[in-house]
Amino acid sequence: MEKINRLETCELIQTKEAKGIPEKFADRIKEIEAVSLEEHLGDDCLIGLSDKGKEMNSVEFTRFLEKLTSSSARVNTFVVGGFLGLEERILRRADFLLSLSRMTFSHELSRVMLLEQIYRSLTIMKGRKYAK
Amino acid sequence: MEKINRLETCELIQTKEAKGIPEKFADRIKEIEAVSLEEHLGDDCLIGLSDKGKEMNSVEFTRFLEKLTSSSARVNTFVVGGFLGLEERILRRADFLLSLSRMTFSHELSRVMLLEQIYRSLTIMKGRKYAK
Repeated sequence: MEKINRLETCELIQTKEAKGIPEKFADRIKEIEAVSLEEHLGDDCLIGLSDKGKEMNSVEFTRFLEKLTSSSARVNTFVVGGFLGLEERILRRADFLLSLSRMTFSHELSRVMLLEQIYRSLTIMKGRKYAK
Repeated sequence: MEKINRLETCELIQTKEAKGIPEKFADRIKEIEAVSLEEHLGDDCLIGLSDKGKEMNSVEFTRFLEKLTSSSARVNTFVVGGFLGLEERILRRADFLLSLSRMTFSHELSRVMLLEQIYRSLTIMKGRKYAK
């Protein structure tokens, strides 16, 4: 996060995880987590992480991020769900769905992967700008 | 690693990284790292991580791992390269090339991703066996 903030203003918000509820109440877990997420979303441009999202390689992701940061007056918000993923309503509300891999990783590791990928892309984007 | 070892004997070997050599000498860096790797390979069944490798989802990877662990009398060795990836010779020597994602991640994070994925698959495999 510190490294990213040297390149672009970025804030990491951790919302409440629904803990202690048996997994069979998946809908309830995702609902609690969705409500907690929605408190922070406002009019943000939302990029939701989902296994149904679009896969990109790092070059494509850099182009995507470049477009996002240059075109939108809205705040860009990446949302990683809890261990059951994002609630259907959040997925529908999202402006874009992104998949980091065909494989399933824990949401904790997905968050690290996303941050590393954003950092990688920002480094390339800033490098390009310096080169001009 | 501890968690994996509860399910399957597994050893993590870190070989020498070629540090302090400018990146323009990529071949030399990869050669030094390859020699250091080869000391440990023997007759192992080699699964090399490469962006040119096959992408799988977690179900496919579990099947792949199941096949590997049940069919081969050889030791199964996953190899993650250094920051420049694996040397051409190691890639050719590999029995299988695997890609964790279309995106490029640091080799440090790739190692964590691979370990988590192996752990996930072993848990599923052992779960299945218990269920029978």
